Amino acid sequence: MTSSPISRFPVPSRDQLDPRLRERYADVEERSGFLPNVFGALAWRPAEAEAFFALHDALMDKETPGLSKADRELVVVATSAANDCLYCVVAHGAIARIRARDPYLADQVAVDWRKAPLSDRVHAVLDVAVRLALRPAEVTAADLSTLRGHGLTEDDVWDVGAIVSLFALSNRLAHWAAIPPNEEFFLLGRLPRD
Amino acid sequence: MTSSPISRFPVPSRDQLDPRLRERYADVEERSGFLPNVFGALAWRPAEAEAFFALHDALMDKETPGLSKADRELVVVATSAANDCLYCVVAHGAIARIRARDPYLADQVAVDWRKAPLSDRVHAVLDVAVRLALRPAEVTAADLSTLRGHGLTEDDVWDVGAIVSLFALSNRLAHWAAIPPNEEFFLLGRLPRD
Amino acid sequence: MTSSPISRFPVPSRDQLDPRLRERYADVEERSGFLPNVFGALAWRPAEAEAFFALHDALMDKETPGLSKADRELVVVATSAANDCLYCVVAHGAIARIRARDPYLADQVAVDWRKAPLSDRVHAVLDVAVRLALRPAEVTAADLSTLRGHGLTEDDVWDVGAIVSLFALSNRLAHWAAIPPNEEFFLLGRLPRD
Amino acid sequence: MTSSPISRFPVPSRDQLDPRLRERYADVEERSGFLPNVFGALAWRPAEAEAFFALHDALMDKETPGLSKADRELVVVATSAANDCLYCVVAHGAIARIRARDPYLADQVAVDWRKAPLSDRVHAVLDVAVRLALRPAEVTAADLSTLRGHGLTEDDVWDVGAIVSLFALSNRLAHWAAIPPNEEFFLLGRLPRD
Amino acid sequence: MTSSPISRFPVPSRDQLDPRLRERYADVEERSGFLPNVFGALAWRPAEAEAFFALHDALMDKETPGLSKADRELVVVATSAANDCLYCVVAHGAIARIRARDPYLADQVAVDWRKAPLSDRVHAVLDVAVRLALRPAEVTAADLSTLRGHGLTEDDVWDVGAIVSLFALSNRLAHWAAIPPNEEFFLLGRLPRD
Amino acid sequence: MTSSPISRFPVPSRDQLDPRLRERYADVEERSGFLPNVFGALAWRPAEAEAFFALHDALMDKETPGLSKADRELVVVATSAANDCLYCVVAHGAIARIRARDPYLADQVAVDWRKAPLSDRVHAVLDVAVRLALRPAEVTAADLSTLRGHGLTEDDVWDVGAIVSLFALSNRLAHWAAIPPNEEFFLLGRLPRD
Repeated sequence: MTSSPISRFPVPSRDQLDPRLRERYADVEERSGFLPNVFGALAWRPAEAEAFFALHDALMDKETPGLSKADRELVVVATSAANDCLYCVVAHGAIARIRARDPYLADQVAVDWRKAPLSDRVHAVLDVAVRLALRPAEVTAADLSTLRGHGLTEDDVWDVGAIVSLFALSNRLAHWAAIPPNEEFFLLGRLPRD
Repeated sequence: MTSSPISRFPVPSRDQLDPRLRERYADVEERSGFLPNVFGALAWRPAEAEAFFALHDALMDKETPGLSKADRELVVVATSAANDCLYCVVAHGAIARIRARDPYLADQVAVDWRKAPLSDRVHAVLDVAVRLALRPAEVTAADLSTLRGHGLTEDDVWDVGAIVSLFALSNRLAHWAAIPPNEEFFLLGRLPRD
Repeated sequence: MTSSPISRFPVPSRDQLDPRLRERYADVEERSGFLPNVFGALAWRPAEAEAFFALHDALMDKETPGLSKADRELVVVATSAANDCLYCVVAHGAIARIRARDPYLADQVAVDWRKAPLSDRVHAVLDVAVRLALRPAEVTAADLSTLRGHGLTEDDVWDVGAIVSLFALSNRLAHWAAIPPNEEFFLLGRLPRD
Repeated sequence: MTSSPISRFPVPSRDQLDPRLRERYADVEERSGFLPNVFGALAWRPAEAEAFFALHDALMDKETPGLSKADRELVVVATSAANDCLYCVVAHGAIARIRARDPYLADQVAVDWRKAPLSDRVHAVLDVAVRLALRPAEVTAADLSTLRGHGLTEDDVWDVGAIVSLFALSNRLAHWAAIPPNEEFFLLGRLPRD
Repeated sequence: MTSSPISRFPVPSRDQLDPRLRERYADVEERSGFLPNVFGALAWRPAEAEAFFALHDALMDKETPGLSKADRELVVVATSAANDCLYCVVAHGAIARIRARDPYLADQVAVDWRKAPLSDRVHAVLDVAVRLALRPAEVTAADLSTLRGHGLTEDDVWDVGAIVSLFALSNRLAHWAAIPPNEEFFLLGRLPRD
Repeated sequence: MTSSPISRFPVPSRDQLDPRLRERYADVEERSGFLPNVFGALAWRPAEAEAFFALHDALMDKETPGLSKADRELVVVATSAANDCLYCVVAHGAIARIRARDPYLADQVAVDWRKAPLSDRVHAVLDVAVRLALRPAEVTAADLSTLRGHGLTEDDVWDVGAIVSLFALSNRLAHWAAIPPNEEFFLLGRLPRD
């Protein structure tokens, strides 16, 4: 783990962790091999941390025919890139590489989602997602219908909007606290079998 | 309450409410005299609703010397106006009028916060808040120092960023679901003693 | 009337008023119960004031099937909001509420005209009006044809463009002189019968 | 005079001219050798034409130490170029060449006022003028003070804002009606002694 | 030739010229009657100057049914105006006037190409050219097909993109070095037979 | 090498290569182990390819105290990211990782150069470079002085502007031809010793 600060705000040490967070953090660290910096950076505000992770899990840990886990990560990558958020582009880029079993797609989506090799469905999802991220008033009822036309259910459509919204929050908080991605994320999913 | 739909997504009737939300919603309705539409629109997703209200309460129900409840509402009004979010401008404009005991300030901030009659401190808060809302990568460490120079504590500074971030989420979800403000909000706080 | 200054430039007292303006100002004040600040702020330049009011009356005091007085006020509200002009949003919002006999529509149009409950005709008018206000070179002959397709006459179409143009002037002058709306405007048209 | 249409709206022939305009138009034509198209395009709306010319004359036909006639034309050229208005750039570019006795300055200001060979005073005027034209809410009291610091009187400062405002109107009307500049304007002031 | 500096960087005198450039420069000066300032400004970097002129000649000195020399100059004028580049607008505006044998078209394209009197083909070319200049990621395969639909060959289509690209370079270098157009360019092609 | 097309335009096979390019291409391929796609995509236009590589080599293959090879690559990465150019971000990101011997810096600069761990000198270089890439008219003489104040020589300062300019060209051509980065680039420089 990097030794430079992971936040502009106080970061509790592991034994100062609020009891509500302790188990979850230990669990994440065990599964991933490291604790993503956003966990550390949110820890001084346990109620906010809990709520943030609840939103994350409700929206991201879900695999549906209309919106796979990999698709959801690409929504995060595309909109976080639109917001110039290093933490989210690198961390969720890594997860997207793993979920999509593709070492290139996350970078392609981060830099130029329009020309990325995507299905029409995912291209339509990213089109409206990036619009909602950058110019939310320009999203119309017709945009939601387009997504339904590509096979997204009502739940999937809500999820697209809610994921963009959650990372509108997350990107700004990461900018505000200057949270860097863990070094591990940069390489994850780039090699044949990691 | 208006009879037109309050969301593009399903809205459970009061007796279909998830038990986790039932008491809170009854409570809000009793205190306010009506249930703000955002409660109804989020109800079909109870876990997300709970997390959203937890974030809201952690950040908005707090009065500090550096950032009063009224100031927090003005952050919401200014950034929601920058995002063209009718629900948040009207609902939080009403709360801002009540909290600030000023029938004009919310409209002044919503349309042109730069020329609104604000203290230097609140003007500085809104300046960086609107920047974080619209061009988050342009916020610098120097911006946070400026806020500390105006007397905000470390907690207050975090709260500014976290409030902007929460309403970056909220504004986009309100656009996505097309949630209208309740009619009651339009007039609240405009008359001498309501 | 507010006791804070109504302009960054000199404001003649009522008895210093240029004779050309005196009668009109007395008349307006009698009808409205107060003198809108823009009258006071323009008074030190009588020729400009006269010309401005002539343009205003030629374009705004006209009721046609294709463009009612209420519609004209909504054009002012939508484009003035796009220009962040507090004076025009609040003053013409009040007039729009009265003309449209609707206490909500002006705020809906000011914050997010795209989702406001408008006829297709008025929605099309505001669409091209806001474009003309913000990116005038992008308005095409096809835009004017669209308005004719919604039943606007040639005179109505001219009026849409001329109203947007007049308030492009008015918004900038109000910003330049920092003219605040009179407090009376904030509440006008919000209560059942005022 | 060009034979292509000078407006998307009706253009009265000279003998159909409203009596209020007839003498002025004959006079302009005699002095200039041709009738600028904006006169023809406005003629079907005599009250608006009169008011427009009154504003024009009140603001443009004035020579002060702080803001010469040539300076005023440069304000028009710079802001009209920012609005992509061909009529105003070409017509007022011609007048600026004549007033400033400089065959290059108008083109320099139209394309890149920042690097044009201007005095510090005129550079400061154009800086705030272009801001008022494009992002009016960002103009502050400090901007007006800066102009006073360059020797502009209170009247001159008002005039800067009012000229920008008038041409915010004029540019949009010229786009709306698609008024082309007369061919004569393109060459005026470019040759040693015309 | 103007006596003010033609670059912010060193400008070799004619007898200091690199041998690779000497003949070309003498040749240009003889044909044109003056040496365009961009030649002088690039001379201190002979390898870059040679490469730049090679690209220029490969793309601009070509007359095809789908993209005439005049059309190519209009691409330069429109995109250079979008980049506020005085040198390229004035110098290539002059060449465009000569190539198109039209004293007005270059100014029309520079200020408002959308309403310029162009064929549908050239209008389509400028539409995608200006997009590529300003928002390159928004250009799609469909845009290139549109150009083919207007009769451009594969070579012509490449040339459109390559010309825009070359002047994206040229505009920025002219801004960086502050290269002014030679005074001769301002008048070229404006008089009946020059 | 990828089997999907490397350009929207014809790509000569190796034995069809223009003699001027053949040796260089063989040489590059031998040194790198693969032929970067931009070489293939430019090959059908040998004169342009030659000139492009001449510009590249003149500006990028130079190590000075004020602007190292690694710094030059970071200028390319930052401005290409601002232009959403996948080819240049990925290819020059790889070279930057190798030149800077840092597996993280290129991604940090591509997504959010403002918060990347850079020296004040390189931060100042990227600040003006990105401005020149996106809003070239806003670059001033003072910006160039700032760079000199950070120790850049006159040659270094020119190089900053010329590199930005060259990749303004390159980014647009890569978008126009839809040139994908070779897969090899994605991983280069990310592992301890490659």
